[in-house]
Amino acid sequence: MKTTALIMAGGHGERFWPMSRKNLPKQFLSLTNDGKTLIQLSVERIAPLVAAEDIYISTNRTYLPLVREQLPEVPEENVICEPVRRNTAPSIGYGAAKIAKKYGDAIMIVLPSDHLVKNNNMFINALSDATELAEGLDALVTIGITPDHPETGYGYVKFNSAVREKNGYRVEHFAEKPDFETAKGYLASGEYLWNSGMFVWKTGSILKCFERIMPDVFESLMVIKDAVGTSAETDVVEKIYPTFPSISIDYGIMEKADNIHTVPGAFGWDDVGSWNAMERTFQTNDAGNIVNGNIITIDTNDCIIRGGRKLIACVGLKDLVVVDTEDATLICAKDSTQDIKKVLENLKVCNRTEYL
Amino acid sequence: MKTTALIMAGGHGERFWPMSRKNLPKQFLSLTNDGKTLIQLSVERIAPLVAAEDIYISTNRTYLPLVREQLPEVPEENVICEPVRRNTAPSIGYGAAKIAKKYGDAIMIVLPSDHLVKNNNMFINALSDATELAEGLDALVTIGITPDHPETGYGYVKFNSAVREKNGYRVEHFAEKPDFETAKGYLASGEYLWNSGMFVWKTGSILKCFERIMPDVFESLMVIKDAVGTSAETDVVEKIYPTFPSISIDYGIMEKADNIHTVPGAFGWDDVGSWNAMERTFQTNDAGNIVNGNIITIDTNDCIIRGGRKLIACVGLKDLVVVDTEDATLICAKDSTQDIKKVLENLKVCNRTEYL
Repeated sequence: MKTTALIMAGGHGERFWPMSRKNLPKQFLSLTNDGKTLIQLSVERIAPLVAAEDIYISTNRTYLPLVREQLPEVPEENVICEPVRRNTAPSIGYGAAKIAKKYGDAIMIVLPSDHLVKNNNMFINALSDATELAEGLDALVTIGITPDHPETGYGYVKFNSAVREKNGYRVEHFAEKPDFETAKGYLASGEYLWNSGMFVWKTGSILKCFERIMPDVFESLMVIKDAVGTSAETDVVEKIYPTFPSISIDYGIMEKADNIHTVPGAFGWDDVGSWNAMERTFQTNDAGNIVNGNIITIDTNDCIIRGGRKLIACVGLKDLVVVDTEDATLICAKDSTQDIKKVLENLKVCNRTEYL
Repeated sequence: MKTTALIMAGGHGERFWPMSRKNLPKQFLSLTNDGKTLIQLSVERIAPLVAAEDIYISTNRTYLPLVREQLPEVPEENVICEPVRRNTAPSIGYGAAKIAKKYGDAIMIVLPSDHLVKNNNMFINALSDATELAEGLDALVTIGITPDHPETGYGYVKFNSAVREKNGYRVEHFAEKPDFETAKGYLASGEYLWNSGMFVWKTGSILKCFERIMPDVFESLMVIKDAVGTSAETDVVEKIYPTFPSISIDYGIMEKADNIHTVPGAFGWDDVGSWNAMERTFQTNDAGNIVNGNIITIDTNDCIIRGGRKLIACVGLKDLVVVDTEDATLICAKDSTQDIKKVLENLKVCNRTEYL
């Protein structure tokens, strides 16, 4: 059975401001030392399993030039452009319709474009296991990440460890972001995994779920499928897409579907959720700093400092994030990175769109 | 008797880096809200006592264009350019020789170019009192600042409060920068003042002191005096000036002279010694910040933030100094501003002169 991948690249996260901008979201940034962007790494990572011509990129129309520039190996017709944002359920549905039109029933690996993975062999092994499950059991398979701390920022997947099926386990239910005490319980139980947003299924399996759980969306997806590859595709999508509800695949499908399995992954996954994630990605220097650019540090410890040509001199600092770009500089306490969005709200209110 | 002023503008302080640079030291910066530079304020401040054509500026040759640009009202021939730095004793000696050549015995008010004064009327009153003392008693008069805290960063002047002479007191001795316990004793005694670097004397009085205490320097000064106003002046100064010892007027003359008086000043003096001084000069906002430029602050308190057009976003910060300029940004803990010089040492060692 043909194996394809759908890389989800429509996100417009604000947490890497001022480096990320409305027109240059995180997946198109290089945050690692190799100069490759997160989406380039995501495509590279899947190469052992999926040929470039079978990789599909789901993104917003705005980002088409960035996708073309950064991923020249992915055929242009594989770039799926949403005319408006409708969260992951519609874009995965559109992707499934597009792949099904070309290959009929095929394996479809859904992956984020802006995460990092440390051990790629283990990552590929987990996806292979998931593919086997998806193909053999007609299952929706999610890659669950073995949690190493009681994280309150992720959703969880509860699985039944009593019955192992082909290196996977049956999912009992999805759990929304828990409070800290609940998260500690999840961690202690050993039967909860982080919901990573990585899925494997057959196009037929997921489309059947759409048909049963979101029949209106399914009908529209079938209209789109008919148009895929014809001169009418853009017009049809333009017309239908805005009528889709804005809903995630988790809420829209996974929480209501049966026959969900999970393959636990322990391959060093990182969603690179904020500037603080740099500490997990880069080696810190002797002073505990992560320094990138034209930087002088004096008596400065445990800081993340990222600039360009401009000289940044840091004196007597601790636990700060400093990010300098051409037109904006961020200086933020490490434990306040969740408040970067307040800067963007302020900019929006003041209509200072040039900085967004 | 003619009253003249000598404004000392040869300093090349590093404490306002990156705003101040080798080629743009503090006295030529505008640090207040009125857009006037410190040297412009210094000249303006003395206007009630001294006409512009009687104001002399002692500076390094490098800064002549800045002086001409910022002080067009001061005649070019009144700008005294040291060919090399030799601290304050030689430059005051040269100034005295120059003024004496033009006016014979005249009152000479020596003032820094990079300090601030809050109450200008009281400042002028103190200088008037000092002028009267200097003229009547042939005294060297220093303006002492009534201390309000046990500062360890200044020298002190011990005076005898028992005998008042024309609103002044006789100085018993000069004291170098004390340790904290000593400074507390000075403050408690009520008979110590801060040595502010402001002096009033007759040219004749100070030159007599040079003759007695630094006879070699005096002889050279007389050679310079002969040349002053002639076509030979530059050449003579060029030749003689490097032979002067590098010594301050305090060590070279004041500590060894007799007949020193002080007029205590309580006019709100500030030597604007570091970025932290901004808090004494500017009103802080409700969050305790001093903000100047294109700044957004979120949950940021007690910071000094100074930029230009570039956006600076500060999130979750406390007690920091942030200074953004065209080619360099400083981020410094308020209690580490004394370490800014380490940044400059680093730049010197690496020969990165473009940032100095």
